[in-house]
Amino acid sequence: MIEPALYLLPTTIGESDMDRAIPRANRDVMVQIKHFIVENVRTARRFLKRVDKSIDIDALTFTELNKHTAPEDIAAGLVPLRAGEPVGVISEAGCPAIADPGADVVAIAQQAGLRVIPLVGPSSIVLSLMASGFNGQSFAFNGYLPVERDERAKAIRRFERKVYDEDQTQIFIETPYRNNRIVDDFIAVCRPTTRLCVAADITGADEYIKTKTMRQWKSGRTELSKVPCIFLIYK
Amino acid sequence: MIEPALYLLPTTIGESDMDRAIPRANRDVMVQIKHFIVENVRTARRFLKRVDKSIDIDALTFTELNKHTAPEDIAAGLVPLRAGEPVGVISEAGCPAIADPGADVVAIAQQAGLRVIPLVGPSSIVLSLMASGFNGQSFAFNGYLPVERDERAKAIRRFERKVYDEDQTQIFIETPYRNNRIVDDFIAVCRPTTRLCVAADITGADEYIKTKTMRQWKSGRTELSKVPCIFLIYK
Repeated sequence: MIEPALYLLPTTIGESDMDRAIPRANRDVMVQIKHFIVENVRTARRFLKRVDKSIDIDALTFTELNKHTAPEDIAAGLVPLRAGEPVGVISEAGCPAIADPGADVVAIAQQAGLRVIPLVGPSSIVLSLMASGFNGQSFAFNGYLPVERDERAKAIRRFERKVYDEDQTQIFIETPYRNNRIVDDFIAVCRPTTRLCVAADITGADEYIKTKTMRQWKSGRTELSKVPCIFLIYK
Repeated sequence: MIEPALYLLPTTIGESDMDRAIPRANRDVMVQIKHFIVENVRTARRFLKRVDKSIDIDALTFTELNKHTAPEDIAAGLVPLRAGEPVGVISEAGCPAIADPGADVVAIAQQAGLRVIPLVGPSSIVLSLMASGFNGQSFAFNGYLPVERDERAKAIRRFERKVYDEDQTQIFIETPYRNNRIVDDFIAVCRPTTRLCVAADITGADEYIKTKTMRQWKSGRTELSKVPCIFLIYK
């Protein structure tokens, strides 16, 4: 039997195989958990069914935690853990609590002195950084760039300065329909010699991870709309 | 058969079980690779033997890449890949090219237009961030703090400012024999309400991940010498 704790359970990214993304031991943990905190109940149920067909999904309880959850309701999912039962956190894709609302419930668990156990799984941030060839001794993940044009250019300029002044790789995510635009914006704003790594469909069948200078990207960038992408810049 | 590419192959951290840290599909990739770029030949051989006892280690070629490698020798490990054979990169612990010399050979591969494929594995940076409860939408990994006393205090102050000014989680690593000192330094320099997460022996049998305010740590910190640790601060 697993010990009572808040287990952070990574899921696959995109359509990748379970055995490509998730260590086997995660499964042994997941089948023993009856209470889950999830970003979306429907996709969490589907994921658990893929983990092990024999899981009786209807015997499980799910507490939703997403941007619509009121702050006073965040702790609700921890009630079983306070009573001594393990609870699992599942996000929409990849590692919970990295760029998703799971961090709020983890903070409450830490504050209450409850044990938190993170399991290994795919992080598109780490996988893209590994494959970029950029500085992995110093890097920052900055989430989304501003949408408004001038703000966006200003932000790109500020982050590019950090590349040179602090020798720090800068990492971004974008909503898929703005992928082509972000590449165009980087090309327009950054020095021609600054390098951009585009990491698309990581762990998926169409995985594509390429590092080139802005000058090289300018003379031929790939069509990126609709694929989940991570963008990294470095000198 | 796997396609010719530079495969980035994560290893276990510390003494953790293979199935807790590494997805099964990694094994199917690793047993097909004959040429490896490694930080240390002895530990890489031992790791591959744990992956699959039937691997004929003596039939493999190993090229060392570490801080002693001359810049002009870094590309040597890519010779088999240029001839169409897959090459694997193995670091001492966790994900290659994150906080280790592997990034240099990845950069050369990217420049040459060679395909780079990162495989999923344990990243103590990501696992500790997940379990900290800190901001995962914006975070920076800063490697080691300066050793010299005044420089160190100055750096801690600068990074704490980033926590508040940029709402960014700050992540650090330290050599195990300085673990207790880094906690003392954070307590001495940071605001009493700033939170520190100590993540020790991640994925290991003695895993310990605790988030507390500096004030709380001051009234009782754990003995941390000799364990590999990650340190995170956030407001």
